[in-house]
Amino acid sequence: MKIKYAVITSLFCSLAMIALSCKTASAQQNSRKIRMAKIEIYPAYLAAYRAALAEHIETAVRAEPGVLALQAVYDKAHPTLVTVFEVYASDSAYQAHLKTPHFLKYKNGTFKMVKSLELVEAAPIALAFRPELLQNKKL
Amino acid sequence: MKIKYAVITSLFCSLAMIALSCKTASAQQNSRKIRMAKIEIYPAYLAAYRAALAEHIETAVRAEPGVLALQAVYDKAHPTLVTVFEVYASDSAYQAHLKTPHFLKYKNGTFKMVKSLELVEAAPIALAFRPELLQNKKL
Repeated sequence: MKIKYAVITSLFCSLAMIALSCKTASAQQNSRKIRMAKIEIYPAYLAAYRAALAEHIETAVRAEPGVLALQAVYDKAHPTLVTVFEVYASDSAYQAHLKTPHFLKYKNGTFKMVKSLELVEAAPIALAFRPELLQNKKL
Repeated sequence: MKIKYAVITSLFCSLAMIALSCKTASAQQNSRKIRMAKIEIYPAYLAAYRAALAEHIETAVRAEPGVLALQAVYDKAHPTLVTVFEVYASDSAYQAHLKTPHFLKYKNGTFKMVKSLELVEAAPIALAFRPELLQNKKL
């Protein structure tokens, strides 16, 4: 009887632990912060801006565990239009990012190059990646 | 004299191979195709569209080695506005993607849900990811 009770207790605990870990994983996913920055650059600063942004992105993603992805592109038809697709682990990771020396260097260093900036707060529908994308990330 | 010649030849071949592999890596990066799809959905189809898009993205990235990333989000302030940030290994990988059964199912199945679609051809400034992003990709 004691053995049966122990087995049932053990089974119950295992199930509870699985349920708890699932909930934690789900909470982690839901707390992510996703943003799109839509930036227009003055044509005279195009090369300087791209270099500053690329340096900033490399540093931030390498140095900050909460900065999960930064993807910056420009519109081929309108090269002064830049989009940065940003994924942070949480809002607090994003707030911490804003205080880093590399972000402040980028922000202050490119201030005069930016004609306009629109920030879009986004929520995920689906994010899927292949591992090959990480193996060769320099562009 | 023969040995010296062999050493020089060997050294030259090694350097040539390194140069060739660097060129190949660079060509791989440059041949990537990046696109942003800006989609407006009719409000009545919001839930159905999100479900169809999420299913399509999961299938495409799992089944197609040339589909490196598909990231779909909606604007929190305007939930009918959807952006898909797409990274393909090459233009031919993208062309092959358009002919897959899962893409055709998504495209035909959501045709009536889409109010407008704008495709932006983009070029990379910097793309950087942390490995954590891949370990927990379901949203």
